[in-house]
Amino acid sequence: MLNKLYVEDHVKAALKEDIGFGDITTENLAGGNDFLEGELNTRSEGVLCGCEVFKTVFRMLSDNIKIKFYFKDGDNIKKGDKIADISGPAKELLMGERVALNYIQRMSGIATETAKYQNAIAPFSAKIVDTRKTTPNFRMFEKYAVKIGGGALHRFNLSDCAMIKDNHIRLAGSITNAVAKLRENISHAHKIEVECDTLEQVKEAVSVNADIIMLDNMTVDMMREAVKIINHTAVVEASGNVRLETVNEIASTGVDIISSSAIVAKAPTLDLALDM
Amino acid sequence: MLNKLYVEDHVKAALKEDIGFGDITTENLAGGNDFLEGELNTRSEGVLCGCEVFKTVFRMLSDNIKIKFYFKDGDNIKKGDKIADISGPAKELLMGERVALNYIQRMSGIATETAKYQNAIAPFSAKIVDTRKTTPNFRMFEKYAVKIGGGALHRFNLSDCAMIKDNHIRLAGSITNAVAKLRENISHAHKIEVECDTLEQVKEAVSVNADIIMLDNMTVDMMREAVKIINHTAVVEASGNVRLETVNEIASTGVDIISSSAIVAKAPTLDLALDM
Amino acid sequence: MLNKLYVEDHVKAALKEDIGFGDITTENLAGGNDFLEGELNTRSEGVLCGCEVFKTVFRMLSDNIKIKFYFKDGDNIKKGDKIADISGPAKELLMGERVALNYIQRMSGIATETAKYQNAIAPFSAKIVDTRKTTPNFRMFEKYAVKIGGGALHRFNLSDCAMIKDNHIRLAGSITNAVAKLRENISHAHKIEVECDTLEQVKEAVSVNADIIMLDNMTVDMMREAVKIINHTAVVEASGNVRLETVNEIASTGVDIISSSAIVAKAPTLDLALDM
Amino acid sequence: MLNKLYVEDHVKAALKEDIGFGDITTENLAGGNDFLEGELNTRSEGVLCGCEVFKTVFRMLSDNIKIKFYFKDGDNIKKGDKIADISGPAKELLMGERVALNYIQRMSGIATETAKYQNAIAPFSAKIVDTRKTTPNFRMFEKYAVKIGGGALHRFNLSDCAMIKDNHIRLAGSITNAVAKLRENISHAHKIEVECDTLEQVKEAVSVNADIIMLDNMTVDMMREAVKIINHTAVVEASGNVRLETVNEIASTGVDIISSSAIVAKAPTLDLALDM
Amino acid sequence: MLNKLYVEDHVKAALKEDIGFGDITTENLAGGNDFLEGELNTRSEGVLCGCEVFKTVFRMLSDNIKIKFYFKDGDNIKKGDKIADISGPAKELLMGERVALNYIQRMSGIATETAKYQNAIAPFSAKIVDTRKTTPNFRMFEKYAVKIGGGALHRFNLSDCAMIKDNHIRLAGSITNAVAKLRENISHAHKIEVECDTLEQVKEAVSVNADIIMLDNMTVDMMREAVKIINHTAVVEASGNVRLETVNEIASTGVDIISSSAIVAKAPTLDLALDM
Amino acid sequence: MLNKLYVEDHVKAALKEDIGFGDITTENLAGGNDFLEGELNTRSEGVLCGCEVFKTVFRMLSDNIKIKFYFKDGDNIKKGDKIADISGPAKELLMGERVALNYIQRMSGIATETAKYQNAIAPFSAKIVDTRKTTPNFRMFEKYAVKIGGGALHRFNLSDCAMIKDNHIRLAGSITNAVAKLRENISHAHKIEVECDTLEQVKEAVSVNADIIMLDNMTVDMMREAVKIINHTAVVEASGNVRLETVNEIASTGVDIISSSAIVAKAPTLDLALDM
Repeated sequence: MLNKLYVEDHVKAALKEDIGFGDITTENLAGGNDFLEGELNTRSEGVLCGCEVFKTVFRMLSDNIKIKFYFKDGDNIKKGDKIADISGPAKELLMGERVALNYIQRMSGIATETAKYQNAIAPFSAKIVDTRKTTPNFRMFEKYAVKIGGGALHRFNLSDCAMIKDNHIRLAGSITNAVAKLRENISHAHKIEVECDTLEQVKEAVSVNADIIMLDNMTVDMMREAVKIINHTAVVEASGNVRLETVNEIASTGVDIISSSAIVAKAPTLDLALDM
Repeated sequence: MLNKLYVEDHVKAALKEDIGFGDITTENLAGGNDFLEGELNTRSEGVLCGCEVFKTVFRMLSDNIKIKFYFKDGDNIKKGDKIADISGPAKELLMGERVALNYIQRMSGIATETAKYQNAIAPFSAKIVDTRKTTPNFRMFEKYAVKIGGGALHRFNLSDCAMIKDNHIRLAGSITNAVAKLRENISHAHKIEVECDTLEQVKEAVSVNADIIMLDNMTVDMMREAVKIINHTAVVEASGNVRLETVNEIASTGVDIISSSAIVAKAPTLDLALDM
Repeated sequence: MLNKLYVEDHVKAALKEDIGFGDITTENLAGGNDFLEGELNTRSEGVLCGCEVFKTVFRMLSDNIKIKFYFKDGDNIKKGDKIADISGPAKELLMGERVALNYIQRMSGIATETAKYQNAIAPFSAKIVDTRKTTPNFRMFEKYAVKIGGGALHRFNLSDCAMIKDNHIRLAGSITNAVAKLRENISHAHKIEVECDTLEQVKEAVSVNADIIMLDNMTVDMMREAVKIINHTAVVEASGNVRLETVNEIASTGVDIISSSAIVAKAPTLDLALDM
Repeated sequence: MLNKLYVEDHVKAALKEDIGFGDITTENLAGGNDFLEGELNTRSEGVLCGCEVFKTVFRMLSDNIKIKFYFKDGDNIKKGDKIADISGPAKELLMGERVALNYIQRMSGIATETAKYQNAIAPFSAKIVDTRKTTPNFRMFEKYAVKIGGGALHRFNLSDCAMIKDNHIRLAGSITNAVAKLRENISHAHKIEVECDTLEQVKEAVSVNADIIMLDNMTVDMMREAVKIINHTAVVEASGNVRLETVNEIASTGVDIISSSAIVAKAPTLDLALDM
Repeated sequence: MLNKLYVEDHVKAALKEDIGFGDITTENLAGGNDFLEGELNTRSEGVLCGCEVFKTVFRMLSDNIKIKFYFKDGDNIKKGDKIADISGPAKELLMGERVALNYIQRMSGIATETAKYQNAIAPFSAKIVDTRKTTPNFRMFEKYAVKIGGGALHRFNLSDCAMIKDNHIRLAGSITNAVAKLRENISHAHKIEVECDTLEQVKEAVSVNADIIMLDNMTVDMMREAVKIINHTAVVEASGNVRLETVNEIASTGVDIISSSAIVAKAPTLDLALDM
Repeated sequence: MLNKLYVEDHVKAALKEDIGFGDITTENLAGGNDFLEGELNTRSEGVLCGCEVFKTVFRMLSDNIKIKFYFKDGDNIKKGDKIADISGPAKELLMGERVALNYIQRMSGIATETAKYQNAIAPFSAKIVDTRKTTPNFRMFEKYAVKIGGGALHRFNLSDCAMIKDNHIRLAGSITNAVAKLRENISHAHKIEVECDTLEQVKEAVSVNADIIMLDNMTVDMMREAVKIINHTAVVEASGNVRLETVNEIASTGVDIISSSAIVAKAPTLDLALDM
């Protein structure tokens, strides 16, 4: 999912952001023949994510940096694990270190948070998915990390799945009108999701064959009832108030999908460090 | 600090990321004459940050969206406060909503986290500053948020201040050598910071007139001792293991600056929502 | 669907492509006070498309160009119709003329071709849709033109709908395996389409609940049979050998969707001209 | 003429346009060790164009894709010819297939159309040339295809040759004035072309030594007369109403150049396909 | 010749280059209500050039900066002249000052240098023109300045005029071969220039009707002879060893064009200053 | 200091600027098998600068161009020295020649000019530094050249060092106020420089511990006095009226730094040529 061309452009911009007019420390202290060896180590437990991006950062600075990973994206890592060996010219190693870590720490942090949620609902068939509450211009990396953490993905942006929210219902007059108008106008290749606050709305969404029905901020009891009403005629998505403490009970209602912005927006970074 | 030209380019890219081939829901349900009014409300307590960016998102989509803010960047907001009134064409309002919120939620989250740290050390003169552990290609927004949250800023990137770390010391042979080499080569407009793990290193850094001395992962007792050794001949920066629980004691040692990656890298977003 | 931000960037690049180091003729012959008035006229019959883009070209060159359209996107126009009045500074009018026409002629050409196909199947409920056979970096304009011409749209690109083609079947082992693997891995917000060459494949696709079944290069009789087999359990798409002469018979089979690359890839431009 | 740097940037953007957030089908069905072999075959007769661009598409996705062409740009190909062998990792092959074909099909289509026109005037010395009626931001590829198809090229854009059209004449007062003003102001490295509607204008253009005289929408008899008047003192270009049926007679008048927008703007794509 | 779209992009990049993460001085010292008034004054004598670019710099930073110019591009200015009045918000005025001056000082410097050369040959009909020896990515501004300084322009780049140099002659075998091959292959809209070192070459160039003949590094006597040989059958360009002291004698030979890299590459900037 | 990623982007843009739609001469005269050998020679005396950039130009055009340098950046070269051997495909060699020379000639010109100034003050400890008076979007190359020429560097842009100028003093009320406000607001990693016109101002700047004090347009006597007043409590920078004839006397006053825009803004290019 991480397109090489996209990643390279993003990494190049990030390196320019961090290097600016030059690494005035390293450029003046590292000679052309200085080499360094280092290890990428983890200082906390979690799910590793971002190995390819990490390598891309250094590859864009030098052809002579060697990186050997002992884990791969999705692997569980625990405090003290050696994740990778890295060696090469001191100058480029030190210039790229921070940016490379910034990617892998953030991506691993999100993968780790996602895994916590997904593990919390392990007995059920529901899947944790992300939302569009992402960091501007960093979404592709964040979505990839959710996937690696064991979650599934919601739509990428506003163009690949229609989602009828309260304001759209108001504009169209009713769920029925809104779905009809979209059916007429959007691609047959795209699904229609309806956000429902009440069971009445759920019934209406079912009656017009919505592809996905989102139960928005419902109580667990309402969700259970909604799942019965929907009865496998649509994908059922629970949303709102999803926290690590509540997610298991939500999953127990039989919903298919639980969407959570927290796995991206509130995930702390994972502590990984380069020890040279 | 938030340059208009830079912000506009970033926002434009973010809108393209989120809109893709079009907002298939809104474009088909909102007519050209549909208008909406809404409020930006807060659902948690914190420090507001990102008002101008929020406005920029909508201004890039339409000239007809009116936004009136009742608070400004840096203001403390509490659950339930109405932050702003917004009104305009439904189509563009709904298309920009998510991106605008993504900026302001993240920026306010960082400002809020920073304020917590800064408040925790209020009795002391020390200031919380950020680090280079930022989200790739999002640094300017994050640094601005730290400032708004009451923190101060560290260097922007690798080119505006020299920082001699352990690897640099190894490459140069000693702190003394490293500082001498940098003095010879870097701009007179730039400072030199030396990262010290031991009091011996602190003494060496003082002896070569380092501009800033970073006490890296030292115990509180070592820090106190270092502050005495340095005796106002350099700015003293504490780093490592800075948490909300530890920061007050660190500040009590007399250091000038406490750098923390957590205020950016581990700050949850602040819950703000647009209620139309 | 034509995002203003995207259109502006595309138009700016196109103007740079055509203007290069300057319009050496006009710059030297048109004085600052020379004004021109002109009409956008059509020299053939068709469906108009691209009015907003046409205006954008001139708006990017000058704030003083006035354009009044007498028709709008989607309107049928016939030879000799005056489409718009335009007036403003001679220099910018002449500099933008060719680029503005290049957009509107191509877009109207595609809308016109699409309308021919759509009209040819008017008695049936089937819709003509486009494909991914578009001009590189011009797709958004081409898809918009298909929509304006009365057609519907297929997926935008490789990321918003899964489509299992012969090679994918081979890689996965069978349609059943491919669908299962995708169900497990893609977003619940995305549909799965299966390309079928035989009725056996159609049956397999139905049995695994494919969202869309494409009948690839089938005879009309096979299509009829396939429509019966599918029996409204999936959207049915006909593809292959779609020409203006064959499309009505294809539509008569009861398929929902007829995809054609010809409406974009083989559409001649529509002759519109600016007469000053 | 196809500059590598320009082509790579264009192709990268086109791949991003088509891949978006990822090829959700192929990424989930093609394993890292799946390889494919395929053939690029032609399903119609024409002139091949775009081999290097085709290769660039795949090279930007992977270093491991091997392509061996059996024909080269400008070769006549007939239905059923194997154009190239291609093999490599399944994932990247399938991700790049559509974009690579979109380039080569369009470019070959234009080369083929151009060849038809050029062949139609074979007995004469006249050359078919293109115009500025090109697809926005795709001009370099289209001009290259005209060249490959046996045509010649007109100016690239507004800056490399002056062309005095009716509006310019009106602004300057007369052809004589316009040419004088341009001679005074444009580079000595650039030519001046005058568009003439009447034989009077032709005479005026000759009298002021225009480098190129365009006979705009003249009858064949007028053209013959104009050629006599001009008598090799300027390049003679015929323009307007150039169709495959009329082009031979136009060429027979003795004009040097026949410019036609149709060879680009109305050329259907050539049917080439990748059979794996 | 200075395309607004191109200028805006260049200026935006230049402002980002100079502002970086923010103007840390001004942002902290200039309040939102601080206004400044200033004058653009000249401290040396020369030809003014770059007024529009100067204005663009400030317009991109603020809508509230007023600039009134008392001179225009091409005007002779003398030490102490007030060129313009400027007023507006202090913050944006101070942030844009340096970049605006950098453009206008360089452009005026080149215009001034060009005027010196052009004045030195005033009695003759020859014109001074520039070359391709320009600052990378700054050519359009430099060429415009040459024009404003009274010079004329050579080709813009490698694509708008063919120039046969010694290496090309070697590759083609002879001037005759080279010209023939180019006539066959380049656009009829483009001229062919031949660089000649000897009078033999000049004769050969004349015999094949070269459009422009460059006399490269010839003595003044050779030039006179060459002018006679060419006898108005081609534009005659003198090149090589063109200095302010030699240019008049070169012009006296009757050549049409004298190309000089010095007017751009060795022109000192003109001293203009903003006095607030 | 010349970041590879930045250089490559700049060079790519410069090549597009110079090549445009193609090198119409070379593309038609150089066959695929034509090879050339050449030498980079110098025609004047100076300091070489830009070898890596020179190589980058050709590397971006072809993998088959070999370049062997006999001197390196910073070396003194004299008229007639062979700087490098170069060989490879004729087409790409000729296409890149001008751009490669444009970089190395300008950069060497600046290095040479800087060296003259630096040599002129050799007996003293002062260093020549550049200013922000650079060519828009070319600053990094110019600063690098100053460094190579033996000079030192001033701040890169507005964000890496605060500089209080007369207007800032006016806005803040006094030097004391301005420094206090900046201390409160800017990063501890950044220095504060104060521009002083009078000795009173110098005293005030000293009293508030400015990091750098600039003596602006002072007489040599005033400078001597200022150096005494400052007495090593701050870096002392002389500015204004710095010319090759005056610089030695300025240095003799004991200042640490002499800033000069002339070394960049008025440096003529160095004559280097490729002889094939």
